[in-house]
Amino acid sequence: MGARPITFLSDYGSDDEFAGVCRAVIARLAPEAPVVDLTHGIRRHDVRQGAAVLANTLTYAPAGVHLAVVDPGVGSPRKAVALRVGDEDRMLVGPDNGLLSLAVARFGGALEAADVSLSAVRLEPVSATFHGRDIFAPVAAHLALGATPGELGEPIEPSSLVGLELTGPAVEPDACLAAQVSHVDRFGNVVLLAGAEHAADAGLGLGRALTLEAGEERHEIAYALTFVDLPADELLLYLGSFGNLTLAVNRASAADRLGLGPGDAVVLRPV
Amino acid sequence: MGARPITFLSDYGSDDEFAGVCRAVIARLAPEAPVVDLTHGIRRHDVRQGAAVLANTLTYAPAGVHLAVVDPGVGSPRKAVALRVGDEDRMLVGPDNGLLSLAVARFGGALEAADVSLSAVRLEPVSATFHGRDIFAPVAAHLALGATPGELGEPIEPSSLVGLELTGPAVEPDACLAAQVSHVDRFGNVVLLAGAEHAADAGLGLGRALTLEAGEERHEIAYALTFVDLPADELLLYLGSFGNLTLAVNRASAADRLGLGPGDAVVLRPV
Amino acid sequence: MGARPITFLSDYGSDDEFAGVCRAVIARLAPEAPVVDLTHGIRRHDVRQGAAVLANTLTYAPAGVHLAVVDPGVGSPRKAVALRVGDEDRMLVGPDNGLLSLAVARFGGALEAADVSLSAVRLEPVSATFHGRDIFAPVAAHLALGATPGELGEPIEPSSLVGLELTGPAVEPDACLAAQVSHVDRFGNVVLLAGAEHAADAGLGLGRALTLEAGEERHEIAYALTFVDLPADELLLYLGSFGNLTLAVNRASAADRLGLGPGDAVVLRPV
Repeated sequence: MGARPITFLSDYGSDDEFAGVCRAVIARLAPEAPVVDLTHGIRRHDVRQGAAVLANTLTYAPAGVHLAVVDPGVGSPRKAVALRVGDEDRMLVGPDNGLLSLAVARFGGALEAADVSLSAVRLEPVSATFHGRDIFAPVAAHLALGATPGELGEPIEPSSLVGLELTGPAVEPDACLAAQVSHVDRFGNVVLLAGAEHAADAGLGLGRALTLEAGEERHEIAYALTFVDLPADELLLYLGSFGNLTLAVNRASAADRLGLGPGDAVVLRPV
Repeated sequence: MGARPITFLSDYGSDDEFAGVCRAVIARLAPEAPVVDLTHGIRRHDVRQGAAVLANTLTYAPAGVHLAVVDPGVGSPRKAVALRVGDEDRMLVGPDNGLLSLAVARFGGALEAADVSLSAVRLEPVSATFHGRDIFAPVAAHLALGATPGELGEPIEPSSLVGLELTGPAVEPDACLAAQVSHVDRFGNVVLLAGAEHAADAGLGLGRALTLEAGEERHEIAYALTFVDLPADELLLYLGSFGNLTLAVNRASAADRLGLGPGDAVVLRPV
Repeated sequence: MGARPITFLSDYGSDDEFAGVCRAVIARLAPEAPVVDLTHGIRRHDVRQGAAVLANTLTYAPAGVHLAVVDPGVGSPRKAVALRVGDEDRMLVGPDNGLLSLAVARFGGALEAADVSLSAVRLEPVSATFHGRDIFAPVAAHLALGATPGELGEPIEPSSLVGLELTGPAVEPDACLAAQVSHVDRFGNVVLLAGAEHAADAGLGLGRALTLEAGEERHEIAYALTFVDLPADELLLYLGSFGNLTLAVNRASAADRLGLGPGDAVVLRPV
């Protein structure tokens, strides 16, 4: 009979058993559903990073069930939701706090949504602090077995789902690009909320020198295709593998060098 | 034909290849057995934390083979064992150092046990330091394929298995609760060896203020259902998702704040 | 119909989504191929450690596809390659920078090789920095489905593949053994590029006291079968679980104690 694959993203980390017990719940309820761990290394409670990484990675994942848990409001009245998106019937499951919103937008909006907070398939007694195990994992397992969101909870209007407030890039044509830091990856690369087209509009040319304004500081940096073949300590701007403009230092941490973190603002100008 | 699922818990961490090569051994011997990683983040050599996490998570896992390796005595004469527990024929595999004991108790005691130290299925030459790869993983794989403990080693008396010495909570009715720290989770929450019923017996009321004695220090803390909606820096006691009383600080580390670690003692009193 | 199992080793770590999105690509292209994570904790860009761990672990893994990505030169003209080795038709996929070379040697040399940099199965547009997702994972998935290296790229001479320059141990019979540090494991054990036979040739006897020269310092250490039953702080040499001579401190970090890291040189002498 089979079951649909389940991708799993969270901020549970790899030190604790949180992700593992969710995998155990799924294995018990839907033993034939393969589970693909996308990452459990989202920064604790960073809904924004989780939303960005989820949207970026799901376009590479097989259609199936997409379980995501970054849930600083667990235990509060925020909803637990299951959604259907896209023409391949992808199902998203997680807290209704914006975490799913960028992926929903990427797949053209939710076609169906349900509040699964009181789902009949949740594990009783539901803990106040671990809805991943008690609500989201069992709902994901049942979706993988073929249930629809509406069968697992109370239908709600897709338009009522919580979104995210992101500051997109601001461009002055041929003069400057102001962008927000989305997140910092493991290698210290600083991922910006802006793409190649914004750089082009601002007059920032590939292979050209730029000025980077970060806080009080000014830096000369290069806009390059890759950071190979640059001097070991050189700052550069490049186009990251998910399409975001990204600040890097060849073989070192740009975040440390520049003192930048999530939500910080930078300005890039042609020299 | 199929094979039973294998859960896997260890202190191997995720930086080294220790857990991965055990998965490789299982994939070679029992290619159809799904492997569910519970966690490999048990603190190095902390048999007590491993035992608690194993018992807590197995109740959520499908019946099958439960491989667990936290093994400070590898290379010493401690036994390697395989056990059968419960009415679903769950099989436990690991060192005989107490690691399996809490799970065995949770499932009503061992029905069958075998010393697999010299099992015919072990990988030769058996290394002095990596029995996970050379003994436990191959034994787990063969159990998943349908072997019984007795077929893989020398039968031993279940009553001869090594247990753990834990200090349970001490309650003075309506006066105080003395409890030992079991472990600290990734978020810095301090998990106590005591449950809600012990708090009730000691006269600690949900929603009420308590005094916490930790070492030389006294703290006022709240006993709450969840740590949402509290001031950002507030200390509180709550009931963790596996049923343990747990000390927490809203969005910070209680272990750091209180200077508490595994085995430490605390006393809670009604104000 | 089925698909061959894929093992996966990288320096992507567990904090980011890099390994996860590769798993997602494989799940989309070859949904029936089981993926066995060997480790993603190779030190960043440490091709030498990656090569050693890959060769050591593959002998325990089922014949199938072996995906490995430690790729400091991503974006440079280094080739992306797929190889066939051994009599079980094992397939290796990764960058042509020496990472695969020790495993190739372990299995008796490459029988067939192809440059897959421009493979028809790569994901377009290929990013400059993430060939794991865009080239190596899709090539691995198609190999798991039954393709040959030559069907996925341009055949090249196996003899043209890039190797590694390693400094093997130097032995003065019955006088001393000079060895290079290969890598340091999670427990702080220092793995040397030498085996038990080199120790024997140098006159280092099991159970005997040795002198260790590391930098300017001299240490007395024991050569033991295991580090159980030694005093808690004792330095010792033992034979690691993959056959390498290894420096350890009972329940502490030998790397910290000795100030040793990858590539460092040590000398061992009989007392």
